[in-house]
Parts: sequence; structure tokens; C-alpha cells
Amino acid sequence: MIYLDNAATTLRKPQTVIDAVVTAMNSMGNASRGAHDEALQASRTIYDTRCSLAKLFGCSRPDHVVFTCNSTEALNIAIQGAIHPGSHVVTTDLEHNSVLRPLYRLQEEQGVRLDFVPADRRGQIDYRDFERMLRPDTGAIVCTHVSNLTGEIVDVGCIGRMAREKGILFIVDASQSAGSIPIDMEKMGIDILCFTGHKGLMGPQGTGGMCIREGVEIRPLKEGGSGVQSYRHRQPEEYPTRLEAGTLNAHGIAGLGAAVDYILETGADKIGEKERSLARHFYEGVAGIDGVTVYGDFTTEYRGPVVALNIRDYDSSEVSDALSQDYGIATRPGAHCAPRMHEALGTTDQGAVRFSFSWFNTMEEVDTAVRAVRELAE
Amino acid sequence: MIYLDNAATTLRKPQTVIDAVVTAMNSMGNASRGAHDEALQASRTIYDTRCSLAKLFGCSRPDHVVFTCNSTEALNIAIQGAIHPGSHVVTTDLEHNSVLRPLYRLQEEQGVRLDFVPADRRGQIDYRDFERMLRPDTGAIVCTHVSNLTGEIVDVGCIGRMAREKGILFIVDASQSAGSIPIDMEKMGIDILCFTGHKGLMGPQGTGGMCIREGVEIRPLKEGGSGVQSYRHRQPEEYPTRLEAGTLNAHGIAGLGAAVDYILETGADKIGEKERSLARHFYEGVAGIDGVTVYGDFTTEYRGPVVALNIRDYDSSEVSDALSQDYGIATRPGAHCAPRMHEALGTTDQGAVRFSFSWFNTMEEVDTAVRAVRELAE
Repeated sequence: MIYLDNAATTLRKPQTVIDAVVTAMNSMGNASRGAHDEALQASRTIYDTRCSLAKLFGCSRPDHVVFTCNSTEALNIAIQGAIHPGSHVVTTDLEHNSVLRPLYRLQEEQGVRLDFVPADRRGQIDYRDFERMLRPDTGAIVCTHVSNLTGEIVDVGCIGRMAREKGILFIVDASQSAGSIPIDMEKMGIDILCFTGHKGLMGPQGTGGMCIREGVEIRPLKEGGSGVQSYRHRQPEEYPTRLEAGTLNAHGIAGLGAAVDYILETGADKIGEKERSLARHFYEGVAGIDGVTVYGDFTTEYRGPVVALNIRDYDSSEVSDALSQDYGIATRPGAHCAPRMHEALGTTDQGAVRFSFSWFNTMEEVDTAVRAVRELAE
Repeated sequence: MIYLDNAATTLRKPQTVIDAVVTAMNSMGNASRGAHDEALQASRTIYDTRCSLAKLFGCSRPDHVVFTCNSTEALNIAIQGAIHPGSHVVTTDLEHNSVLRPLYRLQEEQGVRLDFVPADRRGQIDYRDFERMLRPDTGAIVCTHVSNLTGEIVDVGCIGRMAREKGILFIVDASQSAGSIPIDMEKMGIDILCFTGHKGLMGPQGTGGMCIREGVEIRPLKEGGSGVQSYRHRQPEEYPTRLEAGTLNAHGIAGLGAAVDYILETGADKIGEKERSLARHFYEGVAGIDGVTVYGDFTTEYRGPVVALNIRDYDSSEVSDALSQDYGIATRPGAHCAPRMHEALGTTDQGAVRFSFSWFNTMEEVDTAVRAVRELAE
């Protein structure tokens, strides 16, 4: 089997990740819920993972690294908890439903007004649109770092500078970039960085989180047991406890910690470079095939390791099924939870077949995938 | 090490649980996000686990078994999503902060009025208080199944009958009962059953969920990617997708499925019986020791496998530390996130040392723990 669905979840993980989960399941108590060795081991592992993530993302405070079960939860906490009712929000057509749906909810229920920076037919945005759309009452910009559909990398540093100049909250969805594109939230002017653990970070499913810049206030989405200040009626104020009610997934976090350490040792830039070269090689192999349409602007070298395409007018699900059944190649078809991007690309009916690459894929696998696309197109 | 902190998390899991997580991490794609073998395997495992949980809890519809990252999340979804602003809610002094804090939030922010069925000095409630407190505008009863502090088992079947007669929503926190006390939500009249995966169910941390009776409407707490109906502005209406935005923790759920299957094969009643006999043996060993105060009413045989005690006026943390460092016995001291129960028991300052037992503990371990308590008391 050739697994090219890494933008959905990286199937192959470093062995240290699996080992860390097994060790945790055999030895860990409940973090922050006791002072015996097993509970302390869980607490230490969680804290170490906060430190590794803070280092990876340029977050100045490890205690402002909050764990969630995935990036969707992080984005819901950020969007529901830091955007004020009635305020104006700028976002983009590139967004995933994990950004769009929480924003539509605020629009419907809390009078938040949304403006979308449009994507063109190649899925690209014009940064001047942000400046044009920002208003005195703009409360937040919410933006993905990389399109999950075309791999387009958004220059979040450029947007961050605008946001910081005007004192606007800047929330970034790093679901598709964390682990393979260097992120420095201080330098990039990011206030809240939301990430998932099981994609580019190569950690277990059930992990993810957010890094919060000093001074940013977020209202908890959930309240409950905190292991500290038990007599308070409401969730404690301090991060990370403020946003982490209940028992954390210390088993998964142990795996995530091992994964992030693997990335820190290897280098996110080195990982990203390999992934990009795989995607580029694939693109070059399929771009010239008669009947194949590739989405996105590949004149730019610096892109997320994702190539979405269609073959003639074939339904993307049928193509993906054929790739799976006839060639043993795992891809993802359909709408990719990015409805506005499909509208921009003109693929709402057909969807698209997405090939997404990871550190563990090989050029040989890419060549096989190119041959498969060519055969299906003929 | 003798691990007697199983009410916080069961450290020891069946080997099949760990094996299932490892297999999942080596082979699973993203459930509901593609149709290749790896994605389908994740979807099937998740569905099988829903079926096992539905069977264990007497939930008539596996698609009404919703996964969350722990019971705190399940309780927040239930309480924030099914209780209407301004309504009257009856709950008890036995509750954990995972019930209390979401309720206090509704009280402060949505005009919900709370009444607490009081616990006496032995941590017991009078069921007639429920009848006395129910009013025409009572919208919900929220109640734990077992006190995490004293092990008192609440007769949820009795409360469920009252609730159903009057058409009142009944939410049960099964964090301390699931896996060791048989639960049949239909027979017991439970509308929403909230559980965690990593305690009595012996699954991985980062798992949990809720079973929802047919016809009960719950508003989502989070919205986002659903893998279906991607062009809808809001989360799809159907359970379980309605409450499960983003990628599920399929790795953990695979382990939870193996754990629930282990319980179904072994029998929750058999597991509970052994755990209760361990707790009873411990209670009988320590109850007569001079200077030891045990909390709760042990004239009842049918109790959760928990014994909370104090030794003279020693700080509970110091006793727990001594047990850990001098005897290698893991317990939990302090407030146990159950503030009203400590007020009822008169232990707000001292806290209590909780010994909690699991299927994998032995009588020899209990005897060692009894000897340790005796020595500390002398």
C-alpha cells in the first residue's frame, strides 16, 4: 500500500512515538491528580511536551501551550472564546470548515460580521485585500497557514504585521503546516496558533492544541475538574488549566512529545523540504498528462506537500476508489471540508483527488502514483 | 508499587487494549475522510466501539454513542447543550466539578436556577428531596452515579423514574461507575449518559463519550469538519456527527473498544464484585484502627470501590506522600474536585486520602495497604 493521504492523517509515525504511547499506557497515572510517582510521571511528560511545542512554534511561555483533542477543538476555543459578539472578522476563502463553521455560528448567533478575502481560480489570495477589508471595528483575522486543498502557503508573517500594527487579534490554523513549515509565532505576529498532533507533527490521533501569546484572553469552552483550586465555582484563570478541564490525554501527549522531539532533532525545514520535493516530483509527473487538471499555482516552489487534481470529468471519488483498489494507493477525494475553496476553483460538483506526502514517502512511491494517474487518464 | 488510585485513572489495562492502540497507530487512516482501506479500517473500528458501548450501557442506537476526549467534555456538551436558559435544575452535593462548574456557568450566564439535594455527614442523600425539589419549570436533573469521594452509589433508576414521569431531562455522570456497575440507560430512565474511557472502562486516556436517548436534542459545543455535508454552513444535524467535529481519536477509540469488549466478556457485575470485595476488605482492615476516620456509610455492601479516610488531623497530602514514599502505595489526597461533598463531610481543610481499587488489584496489595495505614496511625 502506498499511503498518500497524509494531509488527513500521517499514518506512518516515528517508532519512538508508538513506544512513548506504550510506555505511557503501562506506567502513567493521572496528571495533576496526586503526587505519587505515576501521577508525577504523567505531569512531567505533559510539561516536557509543552516545552517542546513552545520551542517548535516560538511560543515564549510553555504554560501557554494548551492541549486539545484536535485542531478543530483548538479553533473552536479560540474563535468562540476570543472573538467578541458584534465584532468584525476577516478570514479567507481558503479556510477549512473547522474555521468556517465556528465563524458562521458567531455570525448567526452573536452578530459577528464576516468578510472573506477571495481566492482566485488558482486558489490564491491578494494580500492587499486584507488591508482593504480591515476596519476600525475589526476584532480578529482568522486564517489558515496552508490550504488543505491546494497546498498554497499563506504569508502569515505579512498578515501578522498588519494585525499587530492595528491591534487586531490574529488566529492561525496551522493544521496543514505544523511540523513541515517553520513557524515562529512571535516573529510572525500570531496571537493564537492552533495545531493538530496527528498530521505533520506525526503524533497520535486525539492530540492537538493551541499556543497563546502573553496577554491574550480566551474564555473557556469547557469547565470542570482542574486538580487545583477545587473550591472555586468556575474554572481557574491561569493558563493552561483555564482551557484544559478534565483529564488530559497523557497517553497521546506522550506520543506527541516524542514526535515533536523527532521533528526538533530532524528539523521542520528539512522535513518540509523533502515533502515539497516529493510533491513537486509528483506535480511534474502528472501536470503534462492529457486530461489531468491540477489545482493551485505551481509556479511557486514553496508550497505545502499537497497536489489536488481531477482526471477529465470523472467523479473524484471514482478516481480515488480506482487508485485504492487497482493500484493500492490511498488518496482522498471529495470536498475536503473546504467549501469556499472548491467554489473558487470551480470544483464543487466534482470535488478533487488529493495526493498528500509525508516525510516517510519515497520517490519510488511517487513514480508509481504518477504511472497510476497516467493509466487512469488514458 | 501498589497502585490504589484507580478512581483517578486505571493504570493497569488489559494487554489487548495496548495491542489495539499499537495496531491502530500502525495501520489506521482518518475515519470518515476517504474510502481507502486505512480510512475504512478506522471507521469500522470506531463503529464497532460504538456498538460495544451501546451494548454495555443499554443504548438502543449505536449512532447515538458520541465520542469525546473525557467525561468532562461529555458533561459540558450535555449541560451546555441540552439545558435551556432560565430553567430550573436539580443536582446533588455529591457532584464533581465536571458537573458543578458547567452548572454554575449556566447559573451565572443564562439565568439557570440550581437546587442541590443535600448530602448528610456520611455523604448520603434522601431521595424524597428530589420529589420535594422538582417544580413545574424543572428542566433537568443532573446526577452522578457514584460519588468519587465516598463510593456512595446513587439509585439512578429511582431518580430516572421520577424524571420520566414528569418529562424532565435526566443526565447521569457515570465517570465512577462505567465498567464496574451494570448500567442500562433505558431501564434506568437515563436520557444522557456521560462516561470516561480511562477509569473503570480500562481504556486509554483521551477517550470518553456520551450515550443519547432517542429524541433528545443537544446543541453542539464545537463545530467543524465532519467529512459529510461539507457545504452546509453549520454542523450536520445527525448524531453522532452533530457532536463530533474534527478528527476523532481513532487510536484511543481502538483501545477503548478492546477494553469494552474485555468488560463485556468478563461481565461488569463480576468486575464490580471483585472490586467491591477488595474495597470491603480494606475498609474492614482500617475501620477499627485508632485515629482513622473513614467517610461514607459502609453499612451498605453495594458501593463503588473507593475508601476515603483521614488519620487523626494529619494533612491528607502528607499521609498520601508518606504512603507513596515509604510504602510505594499510590493514593490520592486533597479535595478530589468534589467541593460540596467535602463540605458535607466536614473535610474542606483536611481533604481526604482516597484508596480506589481495580480489577487488577489483589487482596495481598490490600493487606499491605491496611498495614501501612495502621503504622502511620500508630
